[in-house]
Amino acid sequence: MPTLTAVWDYLARNHTRHVEELVDFLRIPSISALPAHAPDVRRAAVWLADRLTQAGLAMARVHETGGHPAVTAEYGNDPAKPTALVYGHFDVQPIDPEAAWVHPPFAPTIVDDAIYARGASDDKGQVLMQIAALEAWLNTAHEVPVNVRMLFEGEEEIGSVHLEAFIRRHARDLDGDFAVISDTPMFARDVPSICYGLRGLASLDVTVHGPYQDLHSGVYGGAVANPAHALAHLIDSLHDSYGRVAVDHFYDGVADLTEEERRAFSELPFDESALAEQLKVPRLVGEDGFTALERTWVRPTLEVNGMWSGFIGEGRKTIIPATAQAKITCRLVPGQHPQAVLRALVDHLRAFCPPGVELSVQPGEASPATLTPRDHPAVIAATRATSTVFGQTPRHIRMGGSIPVVVTLQEVLKMPSVLLGFALPDENFHAPNEHFHLSNFARGAQTLAAFWAEISDADVMGYRGNAS
Amino acid sequence: MPTLTAVWDYLARNHTRHVEELVDFLRIPSISALPAHAPDVRRAAVWLADRLTQAGLAMARVHETGGHPAVTAEYGNDPAKPTALVYGHFDVQPIDPEAAWVHPPFAPTIVDDAIYARGASDDKGQVLMQIAALEAWLNTAHEVPVNVRMLFEGEEEIGSVHLEAFIRRHARDLDGDFAVISDTPMFARDVPSICYGLRGLASLDVTVHGPYQDLHSGVYGGAVANPAHALAHLIDSLHDSYGRVAVDHFYDGVADLTEEERRAFSELPFDESALAEQLKVPRLVGEDGFTALERTWVRPTLEVNGMWSGFIGEGRKTIIPATAQAKITCRLVPGQHPQAVLRALVDHLRAFCPPGVELSVQPGEASPATLTPRDHPAVIAATRATSTVFGQTPRHIRMGGSIPVVVTLQEVLKMPSVLLGFALPDENFHAPNEHFHLSNFARGAQTLAAFWAEISDADVMGYRGNAS
Repeated sequence: MPTLTAVWDYLARNHTRHVEELVDFLRIPSISALPAHAPDVRRAAVWLADRLTQAGLAMARVHETGGHPAVTAEYGNDPAKPTALVYGHFDVQPIDPEAAWVHPPFAPTIVDDAIYARGASDDKGQVLMQIAALEAWLNTAHEVPVNVRMLFEGEEEIGSVHLEAFIRRHARDLDGDFAVISDTPMFARDVPSICYGLRGLASLDVTVHGPYQDLHSGVYGGAVANPAHALAHLIDSLHDSYGRVAVDHFYDGVADLTEEERRAFSELPFDESALAEQLKVPRLVGEDGFTALERTWVRPTLEVNGMWSGFIGEGRKTIIPATAQAKITCRLVPGQHPQAVLRALVDHLRAFCPPGVELSVQPGEASPATLTPRDHPAVIAATRATSTVFGQTPRHIRMGGSIPVVVTLQEVLKMPSVLLGFALPDENFHAPNEHFHLSNFARGAQTLAAFWAEISDADVMGYRGNAS
Repeated sequence: MPTLTAVWDYLARNHTRHVEELVDFLRIPSISALPAHAPDVRRAAVWLADRLTQAGLAMARVHETGGHPAVTAEYGNDPAKPTALVYGHFDVQPIDPEAAWVHPPFAPTIVDDAIYARGASDDKGQVLMQIAALEAWLNTAHEVPVNVRMLFEGEEEIGSVHLEAFIRRHARDLDGDFAVISDTPMFARDVPSICYGLRGLASLDVTVHGPYQDLHSGVYGGAVANPAHALAHLIDSLHDSYGRVAVDHFYDGVADLTEEERRAFSELPFDESALAEQLKVPRLVGEDGFTALERTWVRPTLEVNGMWSGFIGEGRKTIIPATAQAKITCRLVPGQHPQAVLRALVDHLRAFCPPGVELSVQPGEASPATLTPRDHPAVIAATRATSTVFGQTPRHIRMGGSIPVVVTLQEVLKMPSVLLGFALPDENFHAPNEHFHLSNFARGAQTLAAFWAEISDADVMGYRGNAS
């Protein structure tokens, strides 16, 4: 591949400049969660649009969304070529606790192979990696082997509030055959990986209503139902003693784990007792009959994220609380219908509510799991590209979390996503001292450059709409 | 009883002045919970000591306690007479929510038969009722038929923090045959009552420790135990489906309810469905086989007063919480040993803690139930005095709460207490628009005056130490 060699050569020659640009980008404190930083989020959008133009991409624009802006750009309109959507985000997490940062979070500092700054790995470093790869193609081959649509948002860290509406409004401009997203870590250091499946999410809030106000537990203790007890009963009823969710119809549609996936996961370098030690828990626990990776990647789960009732201050207040509340989310897997899961949960809670209290259940957001077939040409192309650059076959993994854009692309544009990320799990994203390894910044750009070469050879277009 | 007639006559003639004094006393915002009001608590102590002296009692003094002051006074040292301890408190509850007060809480306002002010019924009105009765004796008969020790504290509303130490230090001066306490409501309007039993209290705090910090529920959901689930399991394990506390040895020593008490309680004007309606609960619930009064007065109970875990703010945070906590108190009945109950609870929680988390249990305060024999001469005297004034036999009741001074008097001085209170249950103590009925202020003073006449005839001294 003489062309790819030239592209890689360009990346090597321009690495220093690309790092300098990353430093510039990281100086912008584009914290989407803090209203005071809204101008910075906008500044990052403008900076990014300029960078896209400078890289040779067309139509770079900053869009209003109703919240923080979004940025788009594109390359090519050749109907004979597949069209890829590149997604990333330029907003960053807040920095608290600020005192824990060794280097100021918005004064990027390079120490050995790592650049320290808020947003380094999540996601500004990975966004610039994507742009560098395309710039390299445009400045050497003067073309990219695929049509490219680029979409960068400024609200990823606050739940992609306006993203779905934006994608719906610009569906025609953004539509393509598949998406490639660099916003995830590799499975482990030196274990390159391609993620093809994410869990979905279904949330609900539960309130148990007891007496009209907190009551004196001496005067009324024994006479009225305690909402905290009722809520505990309800929460405890949600799991059986085998770690399974004990809600009728919860597992409806859940596919059995295939032997192939089971074997693939078991071959990953994953040490349950080391993780338990790291998390400072006596041991990992969960649904019987599955490993921890299986439980977090391909089995649905239900977690209480928060609960509260009565007096939670210092000291003691001898009351029967007026109410008890819990916030619950389920992680869903392919085959589960989020609304059906929520209905099953509501039915269960109603059926198990003890006497003497009243229950209100508020279903919240719900989004399905996503899965890209492992034989999708984009997955195969990513696998080949990664193998070439890293000198080893990447692992095909799933992840337990949810990425809103992946769901939206699947739901709105029927577009499967390949998650090709080059962060490391211990690079402190969402924590103080976030950093990104410059060697992976380079290897990531090389891999993405190779990916465009591989994808041009692949029969992508036939896979359109096959995501499940 | 010509003497008593003169005493009552004195009370009638001085009623207006006594009400004016109550207005003065109520003007002092002696909120013990708020440090800014400490000078007011002290001012109320000085005011009270002056009032005791003016009433003709000896040795009226303000004492330092280490917290808010206490006030004592006395009358008589005749070894042939029984000695009574009169207890009350001059501190009051905070006033929030202040906006809910129709009249300013410290500008006493008389509307029809009621005086509105913070502390009117709890307990300044009842304290002055006690003093008026003794003043009437001293100004008519020029003696009181018993020796009297008076003890008023300024910390009742904050848990009588320094009271036990104070009573231990002054045990010799305060010791007597029985105590009479006016700090409780009657069972209902026009249902005068004498309370002879209170429940005890045992408290403990529970913490379930999970991972070292809140974890992402997508990444880790299914791999680690959720402390909120574990706490819910523990809380739910504390009761069975019959409303009984499902803790081994919890009921050890609990006496069966006698047929006599059962009948007496059933004859009280108590409407379970009216109470349910008032409390806005679908119905009253509790331990099977007992009425609501029985459950709150003579059966031990266990209540979660507060619990919390994870994210309890607005919105959603998809986490597995690092910890979950609960505050628990039990109400105890005669026969239960508070420390044994706490041990049983700790053992139970340890045994029921699910795998994957760690448990810490912190036992807290513990005090036994109190019970004054219903044939105690002071109970009989109070019954006769109340009958005379109210024209009906008072009900003998128990109460579900705990009054620290009653426990301390029982534990330290082996002194039984008679609770002879004239507040009404709907006079809003501890709430906005607290008030006290002036007709009960008058009838209370008359009853207490009659009580001293009755008690002088009773063989009290033989009962010393019989409280169980």
